[in-house]
Amino acid sequence: MTDASMDPRYCQRFHRAIELLGRRWNGAIIVALGAGAMRFTDLRNTIPGISDRLLGQRLRELESERIVHRVVSPDGSSAAYELTDKGTALDPVIASVSDWADAHAP
Amino acid sequence: MTDASMDPRYCQRFHRAIELLGRRWNGAIIVALGAGAMRFTDLRNTIPGISDRLLGQRLRELESERIVHRVVSPDGSSAAYELTDKGTALDPVIASVSDWADAHAP
Repeated sequence: MTDASMDPRYCQRFHRAIELLGRRWNGAIIVALGAGAMRFTDLRNTIPGISDRLLGQRLRELESERIVHRVVSPDGSSAAYELTDKGTALDPVIASVSDWADAHAP
Repeated sequence: MTDASMDPRYCQRFHRAIELLGRRWNGAIIVALGAGAMRFTDLRNTIPGISDRLLGQRLRELESERIVHRVVSPDGSSAAYELTDKGTALDPVIASVSDWADAHAP
């Protein structure tokens, strides 16, 4: 934590990343997709309380960040969302937040 | 990620934690205090763009979450903010977000 690279003055990337991950529902979406590709409807049913509109908005945001990828079936009849490599690389982040929450959050 | 305990239906603590950490400025405050206790003014000067009002609001929130602790000098003439044990325990979270951002964020 005393590393100069962690100085907030020099680490816009860190801020962007933590705020993106902390935006409402993004964590839930990333965790849910961690188990594998899911269709929109299944994803919505997995995350209690999210609306179609908000889930669509968040998925577009996560797509534009190249964390989530939309895959259309070869015949074009269905689509699913899955984590990209960049999204899968969030595993250690999810795990560390989860460990901390289990140990310290009420 | 396939662990049932990570299922978003069962992990409100995870959501609360990641949203708290991702709330604007909270990551910056926690990173800044990772280097040691700081006075309000020094903290504000370390975080470019934050206002007194917002910094005060965030510090109160982080205090109420027992992540940050306000320490008054014995003679009562000055005060500083420092991470609690719960706040220090965020080190691995900060490190994992930072690693991910360095490797994957533009």
